Amino acid sequence: MLDFTIILQSLDYLGTFAFGVSGAMVAVRKQMDVFGVVVLAMVTAIGGGTVRDLLLARTPNFWIEDPTYIYLAIIAGLIPFIAYHAVERGLTALIFFDAVGLGAFTVIGAWLGIEAEVAGVAVVVLATLTGIGGGIMRDVLAREVPIVLREEIYASASIVGATVFLFAIRGGLPVDAAAPVTVVLVVVIRMLSHAYEWQLPHPKHTRPRMRE
Amino acid sequence: MLDFTIILQSLDYLGTFAFGVSGAMVAVRKQMDVFGVVVLAMVTAIGGGTVRDLLLARTPNFWIEDPTYIYLAIIAGLIPFIAYHAVERGLTALIFFDAVGLGAFTVIGAWLGIEAEVAGVAVVVLATLTGIGGGIMRDVLAREVPIVLREEIYASASIVGATVFLFAIRGGLPVDAAAPVTVVLVVVIRMLSHAYEWQLPHPKHTRPRMRE
Amino acid sequence: MLDFTIILQSLDYLGTFAFGVSGAMVAVRKQMDVFGVVVLAMVTAIGGGTVRDLLLARTPNFWIEDPTYIYLAIIAGLIPFIAYHAVERGLTALIFFDAVGLGAFTVIGAWLGIEAEVAGVAVVVLATLTGIGGGIMRDVLAREVPIVLREEIYASASIVGATVFLFAIRGGLPVDAAAPVTVVLVVVIRMLSHAYEWQLPHPKHTRPRMRE
Repeated sequence: MLDFTIILQSLDYLGTFAFGVSGAMVAVRKQMDVFGVVVLAMVTAIGGGTVRDLLLARTPNFWIEDPTYIYLAIIAGLIPFIAYHAVERGLTALIFFDAVGLGAFTVIGAWLGIEAEVAGVAVVVLATLTGIGGGIMRDVLAREVPIVLREEIYASASIVGATVFLFAIRGGLPVDAAAPVTVVLVVVIRMLSHAYEWQLPHPKHTRPRMRE
Repeated sequence: MLDFTIILQSLDYLGTFAFGVSGAMVAVRKQMDVFGVVVLAMVTAIGGGTVRDLLLARTPNFWIEDPTYIYLAIIAGLIPFIAYHAVERGLTALIFFDAVGLGAFTVIGAWLGIEAEVAGVAVVVLATLTGIGGGIMRDVLAREVPIVLREEIYASASIVGATVFLFAIRGGLPVDAAAPVTVVLVVVIRMLSHAYEWQLPHPKHTRPRMRE
Repeated sequence: MLDFTIILQSLDYLGTFAFGVSGAMVAVRKQMDVFGVVVLAMVTAIGGGTVRDLLLARTPNFWIEDPTYIYLAIIAGLIPFIAYHAVERGLTALIFFDAVGLGAFTVIGAWLGIEAEVAGVAVVVLATLTGIGGGIMRDVLAREVPIVLREEIYASASIVGATVFLFAIRGGLPVDAAAPVTVVLVVVIRMLSHAYEWQLPHPKHTRPRMRE
């Protein structure tokens, strides 16, 4: 999909795989059948990039152009179906790969936005959407309030990464340098926030008094 | 929408109507008002094809090009609103027409994918999305875990149909022959699985131990 | 986005802001963190127009072309986060601005549909989708059955407005006259229905007997 670096392509495949496993884990916990598990894996893995490509009018989109993404998501989806507890025991590894995917997806989304010459704030929106869109769809389909809207520094890592990447490119840094630095930054923020349970501020004094 | 056969066009209208009734039935059970019932009918009837047309960048999409689909969905939506129990008594007929719609939608989605010359696996994804996308949106709006992700051979019938259709076309079968055969195949799988309560395998040993 | 009238543009910004506040109010009640609150504000404010632009293949879409919309939604989202109870006390004002936004969004959606020369019923669908799409997405993400599908004359105000606007334009009325009249009409219907708790008819006799 991107030819500026083989490494980013590899991280993108890795992230697709990790996102697919993450989607399938949720589906297995929800007692879905094998089809539901694979669908949730696919939605999680390719949902964010699909919406990004729609918004940027990129035709054909990335998984129609390169069906490897579909195959990766399907294979990833079958793993928790077959070996749920093995994946659960390797949860830290999964969270790490998921963070790598988040970083790679963020960079790719930001880069495609920059190439399309959209405004800076739209670049950040598109990058974050690429990073977290699939996870939001996963949680909607599984009837959870999307976890990225509730807890943990997850989307925030993507926003910070996208913003840093944007300013780096605008500042003249070559993409070959800005991309890996951003991926590492996103992974570090995500893993530290996970380890130390950082949270964003929540609103205070919000006992509901009315219904809208 | 497709001119290769009047029959497929008719089945497509019939399926739109059946999907609309199915969406409205869910809305009525959820105590929605008349507007909600019609919206859920429309989403169920034209949601899958709309996403497919977006992904294939088909402009204008099928219901903008031929508003008959909108009218059919609206009329279908009003029926359960007016005569819920009559529809309920005719449930087997509804399931049959719904199966016909699933078959027709699957064939149309697959055919448009083949015409757009996308990879085989993407053809199957687009066909299945056309067949089940509306039902997933219906269940998300009605706050159900999408039924196609949980139970029954529904999406699977669409996947099998799309795969058979794809290989038939690639094997040189004319579309006029492959299309009706596929529709019949999907209907038979769906009705048999409904009658005998076939299920896809579910994962085992999934007592949840963690939260993601 | 539209140059036929500065007033409509202003109402559109105002509506975006009001929709953003409305989305953030829901998010605060759901105990989302600051990121979730801003995301829900953005989705509510720009979701409907985004889907409309996708369906009409308008590229770039309105918030990529004019990022003011994104900034307005973000700022709007921060207000309930900081001052939830102040917004709650000003609820009637919020409902009024929200109605203005509904009117403005309806007119803009209808106008873009008319310009694209789609069929009348599709104009109404696109206009209503622009008006209520964001609110539906807000409720799906917050795990509510979308309020516009359940209660109150909300979507109906949009449908009536879109239909009146369509016939006014087809009848030869200049858009500079039809647009403000329609906005006022939508606001009046919405505020009266809110004040007097009008409801659309609900279906009767719907004790559920079956599961689909």
